[in-house]
Amino acid sequence: MSVKERYIIGVDLGGTNIVAGAMPLDGSREIAMRTIPTMTQTGADNVVTRIVTIIEEVIAHTMKETGCERSDFLGVGIGSPGPLNRETGVVIAAGNLGWKNFPLRDEVASRVKLDATLDNDARCATFGEYWRGAAVGVRNLIGMTLGTGIGGGIVFDGQLYHGASDVAGEVGHTTIDSTGRRCNCGNYGCLEAYASGPAIAERAREALEGKEESILSEMVGGDVSRITAQTVYEASKREDAVARQVVRDTARFLGAGISNLINIFNPDMVVIAGGVTQAGDALFEPLRAEVRRRAFKPAVDACRIVPGALPLSAGVVGAVATFKMKTLGEL
Amino acid sequence: MSVKERYIIGVDLGGTNIVAGAMPLDGSREIAMRTIPTMTQTGADNVVTRIVTIIEEVIAHTMKETGCERSDFLGVGIGSPGPLNRETGVVIAAGNLGWKNFPLRDEVASRVKLDATLDNDARCATFGEYWRGAAVGVRNLIGMTLGTGIGGGIVFDGQLYHGASDVAGEVGHTTIDSTGRRCNCGNYGCLEAYASGPAIAERAREALEGKEESILSEMVGGDVSRITAQTVYEASKREDAVARQVVRDTARFLGAGISNLINIFNPDMVVIAGGVTQAGDALFEPLRAEVRRRAFKPAVDACRIVPGALPLSAGVVGAVATFKMKTLGEL
Repeated sequence: MSVKERYIIGVDLGGTNIVAGAMPLDGSREIAMRTIPTMTQTGADNVVTRIVTIIEEVIAHTMKETGCERSDFLGVGIGSPGPLNRETGVVIAAGNLGWKNFPLRDEVASRVKLDATLDNDARCATFGEYWRGAAVGVRNLIGMTLGTGIGGGIVFDGQLYHGASDVAGEVGHTTIDSTGRRCNCGNYGCLEAYASGPAIAERAREALEGKEESILSEMVGGDVSRITAQTVYEASKREDAVARQVVRDTARFLGAGISNLINIFNPDMVVIAGGVTQAGDALFEPLRAEVRRRAFKPAVDACRIVPGALPLSAGVVGAVATFKMKTLGEL
Repeated sequence: MSVKERYIIGVDLGGTNIVAGAMPLDGSREIAMRTIPTMTQTGADNVVTRIVTIIEEVIAHTMKETGCERSDFLGVGIGSPGPLNRETGVVIAAGNLGWKNFPLRDEVASRVKLDATLDNDARCATFGEYWRGAAVGVRNLIGMTLGTGIGGGIVFDGQLYHGASDVAGEVGHTTIDSTGRRCNCGNYGCLEAYASGPAIAERAREALEGKEESILSEMVGGDVSRITAQTVYEASKREDAVARQVVRDTARFLGAGISNLINIFNPDMVVIAGGVTQAGDALFEPLRAEVRRRAFKPAVDACRIVPGALPLSAGVVGAVATFKMKTLGEL
């Protein structure tokens, strides 16, 4: 008779979408992965209801697929934008969600009647890539997530690093130009103000002003406000000159930010997760070249810079991993 | 009968001076601390001779002071500018010394006939502050040394962090203005290009051009090329307006660099070592204010920014500590 498999549910809460799924304890596969819109504008209580709904769907689907019972689920790992407090499970501030001091973990746990843990979304994505993605076995790892914002995570010797007050890894809010663009965080010249999704779109719109030929405008039916980072990557793949320049500039900004991380940390790997990885070599090649220009050679030589291997599920896989780590003490 | 005390010698090799001394294993006191000029221009072999000479003086003086024997010395910890390779004991490149691939550790060890270890000087200074200085018991620590260059060290959970290829902690070579001042490392806009000793002096000279009243010129007998960071701090203490502005600007640049470190690492403490600490509150108060403006509040609230407590000996104390750690496996 085989030992019964047990499962952990992972939830990746984003400003746009909630992604969730289940994994067996050994992380060998993703089950019942699904995505629903977050609909933040409907308020925190409604977002919790949506999280609970997707968790119940994941549970039902997993039970059906594996024949397991509800008691076979150990609990729920939640990744959320934050600063947040892991001990109390409270999201201290999440700009994209409009939340302040919201007790997310316990709201979810009490409604699904399962244990839950809370950690930062970018940290979860990094840990996901470490557990089951592009960074398996990497000793010293920096992860970056590029999306609406730029987040990050740090793994030292197999341990996810949280810092003195649980906010370590805010790599998007490192200054690359101390008198530069205003950032949402209130500071000037943060990497996020140059290389986040919205910043990429904004730079594309700026580049279009007064420029001759570009397919970017056509791609959004003439409404440049609809340009996103994805539009830019797509146009770049189709050899559009304006889009290609925006991608090269993005590589340059990211290269400056990543060079800082490499000179400070001397990591074995920088793994970049999120939609930006769709840009492929058009982004990664000039990015690696910029890092090689800027950072110390022994540190550059020791570090691989790679796209994440779990573009859709790193956050969920990492949320499962953080729950497992916190509950069982090991991966 | 008391157990015989044993001793470790520490050497802090700098571009200007060599500092050395001995400590008993428990680090309870500094013995026979002394400084001699490095005289780098005389060549690597001569510098090694000078290191050997100062070590022999430290040994002789310690034997005289404590009544111990030569066999009571466990060995020599050496802190050197670098990138360097701790395993082979080779200094890969030290700009201020003009060295490339120099086997410093074994050259010294073979001549004094003692075991030796080699580590980065700024890392040693950080570890010295952690072992016996301003950062005792601090869990997550960033150290910065401000001198001819800007170096750094990282302590996680009581362990000095070295990174993937032994070059972690190059906090002076993080970009605070990606299109800014040229740095000695070849890059643009590094923190070191704004806030190192020579950069502070250079900014003071720039400020004097066309400026009316300042005691800075008098202090160097009219020869502004003789202005150093120390001149600036001294003039600032005497309320000189130009010097005070230079110190405030230094605080602003350091504040941007330290904010990056705080947002990435969320450390419990940033300890700043080196001559710059002579500037006192005139530097540290605007520096803390700049960090408060720039970095995330939960990270700022968790982090003390303090001057080192071992301004003259942190590097030696840390070199002793790294030898002890490597040889005995614990502090």
